[in-house]
Amino acid sequence: MHRIVTLTTDFGTGSGYVAELKASLLHAREPFTLVDIAHDLPAHDVRAAAWLVGQACPAFPPGTLHLCVVDPGVGTSRRLVWADIGGRQFLAPDNGLLSWALSRAPLDAARAIAVPAGAAATFHGRDVLAPAAVRLLNGAPPETLGPLVADLARLAWPEPHETAAGLAGEVLHVDAFGNLVTNLPAQLWPRVVAAGRLRVGDRDVPALVRTYGDAPAGTPVALVGSQGFIEAAIVAGRADTQLSARLGSRVLIMDRGPG
Amino acid sequence: MHRIVTLTTDFGTGSGYVAELKASLLHAREPFTLVDIAHDLPAHDVRAAAWLVGQACPAFPPGTLHLCVVDPGVGTSRRLVWADIGGRQFLAPDNGLLSWALSRAPLDAARAIAVPAGAAATFHGRDVLAPAAVRLLNGAPPETLGPLVADLARLAWPEPHETAAGLAGEVLHVDAFGNLVTNLPAQLWPRVVAAGRLRVGDRDVPALVRTYGDAPAGTPVALVGSQGFIEAAIVAGRADTQLSARLGSRVLIMDRGPG
Amino acid sequence: MHRIVTLTTDFGTGSGYVAELKASLLHAREPFTLVDIAHDLPAHDVRAAAWLVGQACPAFPPGTLHLCVVDPGVGTSRRLVWADIGGRQFLAPDNGLLSWALSRAPLDAARAIAVPAGAAATFHGRDVLAPAAVRLLNGAPPETLGPLVADLARLAWPEPHETAAGLAGEVLHVDAFGNLVTNLPAQLWPRVVAAGRLRVGDRDVPALVRTYGDAPAGTPVALVGSQGFIEAAIVAGRADTQLSARLGSRVLIMDRGPG
Repeated sequence: MHRIVTLTTDFGTGSGYVAELKASLLHAREPFTLVDIAHDLPAHDVRAAAWLVGQACPAFPPGTLHLCVVDPGVGTSRRLVWADIGGRQFLAPDNGLLSWALSRAPLDAARAIAVPAGAAATFHGRDVLAPAAVRLLNGAPPETLGPLVADLARLAWPEPHETAAGLAGEVLHVDAFGNLVTNLPAQLWPRVVAAGRLRVGDRDVPALVRTYGDAPAGTPVALVGSQGFIEAAIVAGRADTQLSARLGSRVLIMDRGPG
Repeated sequence: MHRIVTLTTDFGTGSGYVAELKASLLHAREPFTLVDIAHDLPAHDVRAAAWLVGQACPAFPPGTLHLCVVDPGVGTSRRLVWADIGGRQFLAPDNGLLSWALSRAPLDAARAIAVPAGAAATFHGRDVLAPAAVRLLNGAPPETLGPLVADLARLAWPEPHETAAGLAGEVLHVDAFGNLVTNLPAQLWPRVVAAGRLRVGDRDVPALVRTYGDAPAGTPVALVGSQGFIEAAIVAGRADTQLSARLGSRVLIMDRGPG
Repeated sequence: MHRIVTLTTDFGTGSGYVAELKASLLHAREPFTLVDIAHDLPAHDVRAAAWLVGQACPAFPPGTLHLCVVDPGVGTSRRLVWADIGGRQFLAPDNGLLSWALSRAPLDAARAIAVPAGAAATFHGRDVLAPAAVRLLNGAPPETLGPLVADLARLAWPEPHETAAGLAGEVLHVDAFGNLVTNLPAQLWPRVVAAGRLRVGDRDVPALVRTYGDAPAGTPVALVGSQGFIEAAIVAGRADTQLSARLGSRVLIMDRGPG
């Protein structure tokens, strides 16, 4: 079978760390398809990376191996793991990086990967995870990587919750366009429509649209986004700067008053 | 035949949109070579992307499939198309993104691609174009994608034109080095030489050289660039900042006065 | 044999230059694995690129072809070369770009590559090096590329040296995290431990650790890094800004006083 391996890191490309990961992987015996997901993630930001990993990796074909390294605790007591999450294979530090994926699919199995003697304490991606990937690519079964572990580290992901003012959520991700992806799932859209607006921070967004281009440039809009969540955006602009919002900013689906 | 697929977007890599495109494509039955062209194009800037697409894509081997998504009107009435331009295959929104390519080679055929039920209104790259690419990679002929269309959207590209002062052009592209690529084709170079200089905005550039390194660092130079157009540059510097020029800035090949 | 080709440039991806390199390479007769190392290197900075090339390229499997283009002197008298350095194959301008690699492994052979008629004077990567790569990928032996050359251009790389105050070195690379990679090789670590600290500029760094996470956030630390050199870092922060250090900043392993 022709294998696919994806790479997600916060390494940047200018320091050679990504190249060293790739170099290590390419010692596998058979050619495979090497896919860059991102290397410009915010440094040390496990949460931002976890969101990306959980949103994007499950879309790849089964059998894809996802190597994910955002690892501020490299070389400390945090484990390195192989995990099968809903039929997808991951290699990552066990620091919460897989926890958004775990909020969307079950943990089918996980194993702790031993750190080989001689591994650099500051680069387990290159010296532990990539060699583990090569062993898997060369046909070794996952059970040879190390002992089963019962569960993985999980970050606390904010859940929408009812308040006196309505259903409160928050901005989960700001994309490259400045669009605000909230943690309000798409199925709440009828409630937004009933409320006649989405509230973002202290701003009302009354233009409820199907897609970004459905309102004039500069209009704040709310819509069901491609990631399965309700989004706020500025048509042809940036909602993060123009609505003064960022990761964690509050959004609200207001209840209609009794009037 | 081993296929090549290129990707050109303004998505950035940190939000998972590029990864989702790749994930969708990699469901093709046979391995293919996946090539990143750019994902850091200026957001919503169809013109900038069109220039890149028209300059770079035609250089790939025939049979390459170019998936290009800079699509501020996603989900609105603009069509999605497959196009054969001078023997090159493109999948793109029909918003002018292919129009620089069309200024350099004929439109051999184009087809409108139907939007499948269930496609996210905000991500036709993932839900319409990538699946169309997979169908083509799996051997479906282009006519199965949708009905023929007669022509594609074309941006107005500025043409050099004669003025009282001489031949006027403009800056078509500012590259990563700050070099100013003009719309004056290389064959006009003898006229620049005859004029003894190129004028960029209100600055004279009298150093006419063969390559950037042919003058001391800091010198403004004009030359025939690698893209087939006359360029202005600052040796070991940035012409955009140092000549206060940008996209659309005027350049001029002055006529010699009667004296 | 399935070949691997890596690309390292300062082109950025938004101007099509990287795409044109890839397009040229992909005219090889057989599929190969195309690996992006970096395209966002600082413009015209041969030294920064040389460091990356020397650190990362040797880790790839033997037989990998490394195409490296940071070439401020493109089109001038500097040569273009094929080089075998410690069993690794490189194609690059002969401007010092391979000199960090040469400080770590011997030059086994090098050949000057003729510039074909019609090559753009400003883009030898596309018009000289990539076609040479294609010839090699298609099976041509290196001796068909051009005549042997005796040696390659070498930058002066700073060596640690004894001073009255102790062993002085300097910052060789600042990575994407702001970590300061010095030119003090790992084997000097016992001397740092004996000194009880590393000095970075005029700052003492007394926290000598095994990995970044071994001290509280914000702590300046020194450690043996993954690149084989002693590094200074700020836990969960940026050592470049917080220690006011940059490329070339002085580091010192102080001798203990007689007291």
